[in-house]
Amino acid sequence: MPQPPVKDIAFTLRTIAGLDAAMEEGLFPELAPDLVEAVLDEAARFAAERMAPLDPVGDRQGLRFENGAITMPDGWKELYRDWTAGGWNALSGPAAYGGQELGTALAAAVAEMWNHASMPFALGPLLTVGAVEALDRHGSEELKRVYLEKLVSGAWMGTMNLTEPQAGSDLAALRSRAERRDDGSYRIFGQKIYITYGEHDLTENIVHLVLARLPDAPAGVKGISLFLVPKFLPDETGRPGRRNDVVCHSIEHKLGIHASPTCTMLFGEGTVVGEEAGAVGWLVGEENRGLACMFTMMNNARLMVGMEGVGIADAACEKAFAYARERHQGKATRLAPSAEKSGAMSPILGHPDIARTLLTMKGLTDASRAIAFCCAMATDRARGYQDRDADKARAWQERANLLTPVAKAFATDAACDVASLGIQVHGGMGFVEETGAARLMRNARITPIYEGTNGIQAIDLVTRKIGQSGGGAVAALFGELDAVVDELRGRNAPQFGDTAACLAEGMADLRAATDHLLERLRAGETETALAGATPYLRLFGLASGGVLLAKGALAETSGERAALCRFFAENLVVETGGLRRKVVSGAASLAAAHDRLVGEPV
Amino acid sequence: MPQPPVKDIAFTLRTIAGLDAAMEEGLFPELAPDLVEAVLDEAARFAAERMAPLDPVGDRQGLRFENGAITMPDGWKELYRDWTAGGWNALSGPAAYGGQELGTALAAAVAEMWNHASMPFALGPLLTVGAVEALDRHGSEELKRVYLEKLVSGAWMGTMNLTEPQAGSDLAALRSRAERRDDGSYRIFGQKIYITYGEHDLTENIVHLVLARLPDAPAGVKGISLFLVPKFLPDETGRPGRRNDVVCHSIEHKLGIHASPTCTMLFGEGTVVGEEAGAVGWLVGEENRGLACMFTMMNNARLMVGMEGVGIADAACEKAFAYARERHQGKATRLAPSAEKSGAMSPILGHPDIARTLLTMKGLTDASRAIAFCCAMATDRARGYQDRDADKARAWQERANLLTPVAKAFATDAACDVASLGIQVHGGMGFVEETGAARLMRNARITPIYEGTNGIQAIDLVTRKIGQSGGGAVAALFGELDAVVDELRGRNAPQFGDTAACLAEGMADLRAATDHLLERLRAGETETALAGATPYLRLFGLASGGVLLAKGALAETSGERAALCRFFAENLVVETGGLRRKVVSGAASLAAAHDRLVGEPV
Repeated sequence: MPQPPVKDIAFTLRTIAGLDAAMEEGLFPELAPDLVEAVLDEAARFAAERMAPLDPVGDRQGLRFENGAITMPDGWKELYRDWTAGGWNALSGPAAYGGQELGTALAAAVAEMWNHASMPFALGPLLTVGAVEALDRHGSEELKRVYLEKLVSGAWMGTMNLTEPQAGSDLAALRSRAERRDDGSYRIFGQKIYITYGEHDLTENIVHLVLARLPDAPAGVKGISLFLVPKFLPDETGRPGRRNDVVCHSIEHKLGIHASPTCTMLFGEGTVVGEEAGAVGWLVGEENRGLACMFTMMNNARLMVGMEGVGIADAACEKAFAYARERHQGKATRLAPSAEKSGAMSPILGHPDIARTLLTMKGLTDASRAIAFCCAMATDRARGYQDRDADKARAWQERANLLTPVAKAFATDAACDVASLGIQVHGGMGFVEETGAARLMRNARITPIYEGTNGIQAIDLVTRKIGQSGGGAVAALFGELDAVVDELRGRNAPQFGDTAACLAEGMADLRAATDHLLERLRAGETETALAGATPYLRLFGLASGGVLLAKGALAETSGERAALCRFFAENLVVETGGLRRKVVSGAASLAAAHDRLVGEPV
Repeated sequence: MPQPPVKDIAFTLRTIAGLDAAMEEGLFPELAPDLVEAVLDEAARFAAERMAPLDPVGDRQGLRFENGAITMPDGWKELYRDWTAGGWNALSGPAAYGGQELGTALAAAVAEMWNHASMPFALGPLLTVGAVEALDRHGSEELKRVYLEKLVSGAWMGTMNLTEPQAGSDLAALRSRAERRDDGSYRIFGQKIYITYGEHDLTENIVHLVLARLPDAPAGVKGISLFLVPKFLPDETGRPGRRNDVVCHSIEHKLGIHASPTCTMLFGEGTVVGEEAGAVGWLVGEENRGLACMFTMMNNARLMVGMEGVGIADAACEKAFAYARERHQGKATRLAPSAEKSGAMSPILGHPDIARTLLTMKGLTDASRAIAFCCAMATDRARGYQDRDADKARAWQERANLLTPVAKAFATDAACDVASLGIQVHGGMGFVEETGAARLMRNARITPIYEGTNGIQAIDLVTRKIGQSGGGAVAALFGELDAVVDELRGRNAPQFGDTAACLAEGMADLRAATDHLLERLRAGETETALAGATPYLRLFGLASGGVLLAKGALAETSGERAALCRFFAENLVVETGGLRRKVVSGAASLAAAHDRLVGEPV
């Protein structure tokens, strides 16, 4: 039975990301170490016992789509019922509406377990949390009263309706329209694509958050408003009443996440005409400020997609390590010196090339987790200081903003790499679907695409995040990371080998690349900066991830984390020199070749 | 309609790999530039018009398996009939049996087109060519007389039966057994797994080449013999007669290549007992020398799997470039300065991050092709010099041996990366199966696994190939590559930017890593050397691939190849420094962490 790495998760959360320190500072009055451990253990148990067994079922069966209705795979409805009954959907929700408000960091840790067990299942609640956040921050009291309790408990699920055929990364091109009605409501018309969990039979109602334009709205992203459009209009008692004019037109046949409905949604395409036509909706926030409302929940959603990456990477590691212990081929000198003499075969784990693969997988996974949890903790700290220290709150919010694209993109790229390496460890078995290694790769492949492609994340990091407070936000982080490297150097412990030197080089590369980009941006050479965005994000992830692993390794005595950290520093962080060169010197050749792309293919 | 990049293929074959020079030297009396072009054009036409349209059909339908029989997808039988009728199966076969003997290099070039159109289709004939080669070199005159003409024309297809559940990378563990019979035939018993095209309805007979052990054979790989086991025993007229006791027991449900049967084959599991029991087979080569027979065709098969990688990478590039030209999102400053003013959207190709992705895809594809074609040409040169100059023949054979693992592993790793990047360029569309980008990634994923995993290729490169002639083989290659870099430096042409310096660094890294590995091997530190095998192979591919692109760029005046070569040098070859460090300094941390893998997971 798959088991989430609860020990690693707890350690990373408490020690590397600093939840213990934050609890000691009194930032989490509702939390205590015992409670944290209890929540993590309980989540691990549910994930392993209840959720994981239904993931292959969902992948194999997929969805039944008939007459606009979707039937989820066998057992999923009961799973969702029991999962919400356990209070898991309410973990981070606002207390005023039944939530437990246990914070983003703990939510991220628990999310890793759900994604370890079944990412397509965990994906639905992820979007519900986003809807809760948007409503809680921007919704009217009336909307909150009717919807929030249902969404927090998970009785109803939420969706996000952004993408249209001509508007993906570029929401300025959005065309769905909204009309005002005299009673204060709106009518929504248009087509939305790639709507995750847009339709299903898990809950009695579905609450769609929809971006659309009012007739008199300005062009571009400043003319987009956010609306709440329920599948069933609640009656006076708050129960689902009349069916709204929003339907699932079709679902996509996808590479992975077969059990997660990806819907084309039609709003206001029914037969009614005149004033009554259209899907009934209500404004969330102010008119024409829809994108800003969406952005307030974007950080959390992006972080949680990063957690999808970490969870899948976990699962791939677990599977590959288990196979490499049990599969015997050839004679390895290490691990099995007796086997060599006897002529027996060794576990393939004993071969250096397989060991390199496994350690690379584990290193990327642990580094991704550390970055993501630090990002989550920054969010919690920003909230914790909100009413006590505005400067600190702002600094931590900037830290969260800075780390969000790294957590999303580095972790999801890592998930794809780790899942693919996991297949490779299995050899031919990895290509056979029943093993499950291929399923992880198929599911992972969407994570670098949705919730802002990883290219968009890299652009966000370069153009909006490293420049925060004139470079002060990034300098503060680098200072903290440098201090860890200094401590490591001072420790001078033999089990770390050249870790300190490699990490110091990594940080120097990261600084040099950052300075280069900030200079280009100051000089107005945006395109030159953007040419290096993707290698820069990777460099950021490797260097900071390596240092965070060292922070963990310094805090334990067994030497296990030191060994992995050393491998990561001496075999992965050494890539930063090449990445820095791509950032600093790669743009000219890119521009020259780029010009030739205009005409014929190069 | 997908179109193989016939211009790039012809240029790489004739200019970079040097087919023109070889023709001038008289090494290919049967070839002329006109004929080469005609063959390539004709293959491109057949691939695009006939083969490519049936690839998605095969992927969607997969195979029907009933009572041990497999029905291929709609249209595949007719496709195979017409393809063999066109003489394509016979391109490289021996003239004595109806083959055209046009050489390995041209065969590789044509194979790229088939794999561009439909890798699962091209896979069957790849194995038939292997069977032809094994029989032609090692079969008795009687076996050749009965089987070779049929296999050369493609009237019958061939298979390779190596893997067993307990014997994958490690063939020493093989258990299938063979018994001698008085008439000189053998009876084969055992189970083989992952047998590609082990059963199908494309041809009236299937010729299995099977590894098995004789009762008195020594243990390990020195006790393995090779047998020919036909599905139907040919009667006196050479027509398929009595059904042999070899059956397809089941087929695998796989991540990709859905139309390529992957069979579990049972030999001698029928109800007959006594002397007549077992699958009837005939020895190929000598008893207990089966592995050597297999190895003679391994080079070619591995190269051709490399060509699968190149063909898939081609197809992914074509699809991604087309989408990036047609899809409009956002405003890019480059390409569309007018669009920026007008507020219209630009093709996503105009965004630097997408351009980086596309150029990376194209660079990896072209470099892989160049390496693979050079490997194929070395094989042809070795054969061409065979009767004229033994030293030259040996040197070229060593070159082919050296480049084979690089061609196989670098190209198939590249195919996985390029196909995955291709999905990314498509955004959400890439994750939807109907686009076809995901199919390419699913198909690509088997290529680093079969025909020797890429880890096995890296080990082969390190332990058997770089040490050929005391390091002389690798030194000869490096000398040729250095000469190209020198010419480039001498040219001092502005469009190359820092290409010469980057390539010189890449070659220096490659030399340093090679010297390090040769020293470790001389010192008996095999495990230390093996720890760096995979990064070394990647380093080898990047540095040599970059120089080969430069060789091409120096030979043309338009500057297109120079632009791509420069991008490759300044943005990909810059990774070699990090790779060298992994090879030279990465083993200690790997060993330290490796020791901890014995017990608990790190």
